[in-house]
Amino acid sequence: MTVVDSGLSSAGEARRRRGGGAEARRARRAGGGAVQLPFIRRRLSTYEVLDEEGLALIEANADLILEEIGIEFREDEEALALWREAGADVQESRVHCPRGLCRTLLKTAPESFTQHARNPERSVAIGGDATVFAPVYGPPFVRDLDHGRRYGTIEDFRNFVKLAYQAPAIHHSGGTVCEPVDVAVNKRHLDMVYSHIRYSDKPFMGSVTHPERAADSVAMAEMLFGKDFVADNCVLVSLINANSPMVFDATMLGALKVYARAGQGTIVTPFILAGAMSPVTVAGTLAQVLAEVLAGAALTQLCRPGAPVVMGCFAASISMQSGAPTFGTPEPALVSYGAAQLARRLGIPFRTGGSLCAAKTADAQAAYESANTLNTTLLAGTNFVLHSAGWLEGGLASGYEKFVMDCDQLAMQQRFMEGVDLSENGQALSAIREVGPGSHYLGCQHTQDNFETAFYRSTVADNNSFEQWLAEGSKTAEERANALWKKWLAEYEAPPLDAGIDDGLQEFIARRKASMPDAFA
Amino acid sequence: MTVVDSGLSSAGEARRRRGGGAEARRARRAGGGAVQLPFIRRRLSTYEVLDEEGLALIEANADLILEEIGIEFREDEEALALWREAGADVQESRVHCPRGLCRTLLKTAPESFTQHARNPERSVAIGGDATVFAPVYGPPFVRDLDHGRRYGTIEDFRNFVKLAYQAPAIHHSGGTVCEPVDVAVNKRHLDMVYSHIRYSDKPFMGSVTHPERAADSVAMAEMLFGKDFVADNCVLVSLINANSPMVFDATMLGALKVYARAGQGTIVTPFILAGAMSPVTVAGTLAQVLAEVLAGAALTQLCRPGAPVVMGCFAASISMQSGAPTFGTPEPALVSYGAAQLARRLGIPFRTGGSLCAAKTADAQAAYESANTLNTTLLAGTNFVLHSAGWLEGGLASGYEKFVMDCDQLAMQQRFMEGVDLSENGQALSAIREVGPGSHYLGCQHTQDNFETAFYRSTVADNNSFEQWLAEGSKTAEERANALWKKWLAEYEAPPLDAGIDDGLQEFIARRKASMPDAFA
Repeated sequence: MTVVDSGLSSAGEARRRRGGGAEARRARRAGGGAVQLPFIRRRLSTYEVLDEEGLALIEANADLILEEIGIEFREDEEALALWREAGADVQESRVHCPRGLCRTLLKTAPESFTQHARNPERSVAIGGDATVFAPVYGPPFVRDLDHGRRYGTIEDFRNFVKLAYQAPAIHHSGGTVCEPVDVAVNKRHLDMVYSHIRYSDKPFMGSVTHPERAADSVAMAEMLFGKDFVADNCVLVSLINANSPMVFDATMLGALKVYARAGQGTIVTPFILAGAMSPVTVAGTLAQVLAEVLAGAALTQLCRPGAPVVMGCFAASISMQSGAPTFGTPEPALVSYGAAQLARRLGIPFRTGGSLCAAKTADAQAAYESANTLNTTLLAGTNFVLHSAGWLEGGLASGYEKFVMDCDQLAMQQRFMEGVDLSENGQALSAIREVGPGSHYLGCQHTQDNFETAFYRSTVADNNSFEQWLAEGSKTAEERANALWKKWLAEYEAPPLDAGIDDGLQEFIARRKASMPDAFA
Repeated sequence: MTVVDSGLSSAGEARRRRGGGAEARRARRAGGGAVQLPFIRRRLSTYEVLDEEGLALIEANADLILEEIGIEFREDEEALALWREAGADVQESRVHCPRGLCRTLLKTAPESFTQHARNPERSVAIGGDATVFAPVYGPPFVRDLDHGRRYGTIEDFRNFVKLAYQAPAIHHSGGTVCEPVDVAVNKRHLDMVYSHIRYSDKPFMGSVTHPERAADSVAMAEMLFGKDFVADNCVLVSLINANSPMVFDATMLGALKVYARAGQGTIVTPFILAGAMSPVTVAGTLAQVLAEVLAGAALTQLCRPGAPVVMGCFAASISMQSGAPTFGTPEPALVSYGAAQLARRLGIPFRTGGSLCAAKTADAQAAYESANTLNTTLLAGTNFVLHSAGWLEGGLASGYEKFVMDCDQLAMQQRFMEGVDLSENGQALSAIREVGPGSHYLGCQHTQDNFETAFYRSTVADNNSFEQWLAEGSKTAEERANALWKKWLAEYEAPPLDAGIDDGLQEFIARRKASMPDAFA
């Protein structure tokens, strides 16, 4: 299997790149709808917080953890057998990896790969200088200004898929955009995967809550893309969380094996609330994160050499008083920057961050914390950004207003990553000569020529005068965002889906649902 | 005159550096009061958006602007005479500088200097790897949740000086923290400078609205520090705005000359709303900014070689629909990063950014925009950060809630800039060994040892559960901040001031006020 992103260096890629300019910016201003931004190719460098010495120290500590302390692979004899065969020292469920073993195994993992979308224009590169934005993942609750906080439903799920489809700077439909709590636990994955296929044409994620559900996700992807295509191409990228510290449980291992063997992508992610699941220090957390990723990611290569795997790092701290998770603070930022550097040295793509916050509403706390996290995420050079829009309350709620506010920020980051235009037009000497001292640039030729695309235009910010803002009802950003997501949903039109494929998927879902009783835990 | 920051490499500096650790973090948690953070010594690198080729191109374009187009120095024959003498080609008020002249003149300006505070522990370094936070500057309005938006008064002015004194991560008392509109225009500078001296012991700025008011500021500083000390040391840093594009007006030139001749610091700042005062492109804006700074800063050296001067760059864009200024967007971020690189090559300290926003209240818009600007400001390696707290509404209002919310963010940035602790304690292998797979770190020895200082603790964020937040009244960040600034003001105690100095200052102010009738324009 060849899993590289060369497929995107083609005509499709060229079209995409052109989309990064004027046309794409017009799309941003439209605030949703048909014209979409391609995934990001960062033209700016990454920011780094560790030097060679620091990186080598943390890598050595990760090796020490792998060898001396070991990682638990629980209730999965098959995984333990694979480790034994690969040369690890396995004591009960504890796997001790000799120094260097995991890195050697990971040599077969691609540095970058393409995840295909059913609309080839929306396929994304994961790795290298690419950054892909995907929505919030996992919240059992949803929140909007009109109805407050409540359990998520399949209707909410579809709404967030539609909003992600409408958002020009969301490149990926994501996975569990909220938990559809009104659908049985053992069946909701079918409705979720179907919703991504039916209501979007962007790439999406598979279920990881049971190996059978992972297999269902692959089966549905095969119906959409064709069995042969799926055998040789990545069409799913799914989230495999470590049970930190230093444990992988049977559920996650089961899903990991299904996806890796199908040649599908996994994001092996220590879910870290530092101080609880890792040490209270940045360097200690980084060593543990690296050790966990090395072990989990290496297992994908034992299942199928070449299977795409991403180094994940979900980093938050806890309040030392209450144990509550905190976001947007300095320590997780340092962890994210450091982990991104470690991933680049490891040679696999990296996932961290997003628009994370502990705030209960889309207020200033939400925005400070989300912006801090998102700035870090981008400058770290993150390749896959889960939770890039909609996250509230430490991941307990998907917020409708927060979602469209975050989308505005994502589009800004995408513009920022285009860097500085040094062309003759960018240098603007004609404008400076025309205007001269003491005048203004508002009407000069250069300004008129660049009027449409000059500056990023926010979809949420109110930049009007105080008096005009007052006259328009003194609305907060949250109130303006409330109108915006409703507009996006009202304007939503589903992308066309082949009727035969749709029928097949619906038949499959009906059959699978009929094959088992509802389970709600 | 020797104006370098060697004075801060002494015992005072050592005490300051110790303050950056555990003690300082305890101070942050206290949320104001006696224990203060020293100014920042960044231990992390700067982020750069231009390569050597891009920088050289922009420098060449700035030289072209200086030589071919020229800069206006209006209604100031003395300045024009200085330029003629220095070898510039002066046509009426237009000064054309031959390539390289300004850079040559600026060779006498210090790369870094100390601004002394009346409390020597609070003196700051400006330049190099130092970052100094100063509050919002210039708003005619103030805003708080209780009374909304209204004109600022001298009472508000004192309040913001007190809040800046209380804030652990504000290192500088600033200047016009709001306009005290209830005091005559031609006299309010006396009350403002006095308020900084009386209610704070942090360094402060002088008046620039008239050369006489600049002279009054120097005279008051001489009464505080002693004439001899002021002759040889920088005790004032003041804001000289260019009237962009490519004009310096008589008021600003008058103040610039007073301060430079007194050996006091100036921050020469093109105040740019790109698209109006500069071209709509980043590279065009940077060339113009650099040209304006080169001319204005070089003039300080013609007045007094060695006078401290800072390259300033106030960068915002405008809405191309309404002409309204916008903040926190990608283009000003690119301008700030680029300008910081140009300043480092020029070899003088740099000022940009802060916590800028167009929002009318301390809502999510305010926070997204402020956080974007502040992250850029810090990573750019900015030395002097005006507007670091309290800015609302494009600089039209100083916000009480916004002020303390921003202070929380400043303290986070300060912690971030400490970088990653790679000591044995930082590596935390003892904790990882003690805890092992499947347990948690909450009670382990290493966590207990680092409990006090492990993570930044926000003064504003609510990280509690949704249920607890609901039980406590579902407060937004703005509502919590309302309680916080009131607490800070209630706990405020003025730093001691020598009674003789205080009497002298009051006598001086009374005499100056009596010498002229009130003017209100």
